[in-house]
Amino acid sequence: MTHGQPRRGLLLILSSPSGAGKSTMARMLMAWDPTIRFSVSATTRKPRPGEVHGQHYWFHDHDSFRALVASGGMLEHAEVFGNFYGSPRAPVEQAMSEGRDTLFDVDWQGGQQIRNSALGKDAVSVFILPPSIAELENRLKGRAQDSAEVIAGRMAKSRDEISHWAEYDYVLVNREVDETFADLKAIVTAERLRRDRQPGLNDFVRDLNTEFEAR
Amino acid sequence: MTHGQPRRGLLLILSSPSGAGKSTMARMLMAWDPTIRFSVSATTRKPRPGEVHGQHYWFHDHDSFRALVASGGMLEHAEVFGNFYGSPRAPVEQAMSEGRDTLFDVDWQGGQQIRNSALGKDAVSVFILPPSIAELENRLKGRAQDSAEVIAGRMAKSRDEISHWAEYDYVLVNREVDETFADLKAIVTAERLRRDRQPGLNDFVRDLNTEFEAR
Repeated sequence: MTHGQPRRGLLLILSSPSGAGKSTMARMLMAWDPTIRFSVSATTRKPRPGEVHGQHYWFHDHDSFRALVASGGMLEHAEVFGNFYGSPRAPVEQAMSEGRDTLFDVDWQGGQQIRNSALGKDAVSVFILPPSIAELENRLKGRAQDSAEVIAGRMAKSRDEISHWAEYDYVLVNREVDETFADLKAIVTAERLRRDRQPGLNDFVRDLNTEFEAR
Repeated sequence: MTHGQPRRGLLLILSSPSGAGKSTMARMLMAWDPTIRFSVSATTRKPRPGEVHGQHYWFHDHDSFRALVASGGMLEHAEVFGNFYGSPRAPVEQAMSEGRDTLFDVDWQGGQQIRNSALGKDAVSVFILPPSIAELENRLKGRAQDSAEVIAGRMAKSRDEISHWAEYDYVLVNREVDETFADLKAIVTAERLRRDRQPGLNDFVRDLNTEFEAR
């Protein structure tokens, strides 16, 4: 930001197959810049042990979820394994009006819908690929709470997810967490420096011209 | 870069009024990544003391400069204060074929021509603004070798140059050299991570799919 006017907030879309490191990247990004607002998804699936309403998800029954969609309250939504997931619109518009970025941890369907939404021109999308499928499977198996059946389902979904990699602006191969995060920070830093994301520059250059006149 | 195929080389265009820090940024960028190729400009102006042919400029007389332009050997060229300046095309194409970036230290006319050239889709342009005109003038006056008349001419040209700031992809206000350089590095790092600049990703994802098949 250069001047009084806040910069335009970004819609930062992060997608990857389960286990490729998306959630770790999201967490690191929020720790790096606490002004970034994380878009908490709404869902109709039941809370898992320890999941907090409004923190991990906004938990809804099917009727109230449908009502939100019908009233335009969702920026995007999709059905996955029989449950609905979506990104509430109001917090995103609030963040943008404050010049703050919103981070979306969504799958390719969510990414497509955000890009195609009315706010899509401020979307920046990043796809994270695993270094190999063997590594992806190892990371999924490391999550002790999931059954073999759940893991098999995730692997099938991973393949589907990866098939959409070419729809994203940026692609990172997550070989090493710190390197990948450094790349992600560079992307966010650079996107904030785009001319059209710095509306305050108009006033700044006007002041430079006033200074020229006064010489 | 992810794989065997080299990434697409960038045409990194750096413009700013004289004294805003463009040459310092260019030097720091080359030191940070020696694979970046600096585009040495061709000119018809006479060498200043200490200037080396092929290092600071390619010095030409008007006839040989015109012959180069006529044969398509210049990516861009323009007349400034009665002298011609231009960017030879061959070294840029050579660098791109090796997946290396080329750095252009050019004015707005050069920037426009590179963006509009056949290689323009790989151009990334950065404009550097001074924090104030007073500061810009101080920096120009600090260059002992220039007369008051030369400085006055530069200030007029600076105003003209600044009037083109909005044609650039990225804008940096150079308040503090290290901060500005960190931003510039982020821009170069991010632009290299764009999906369409990493042709090797196609093979990489094909290998991931082969691995899925083999499970």
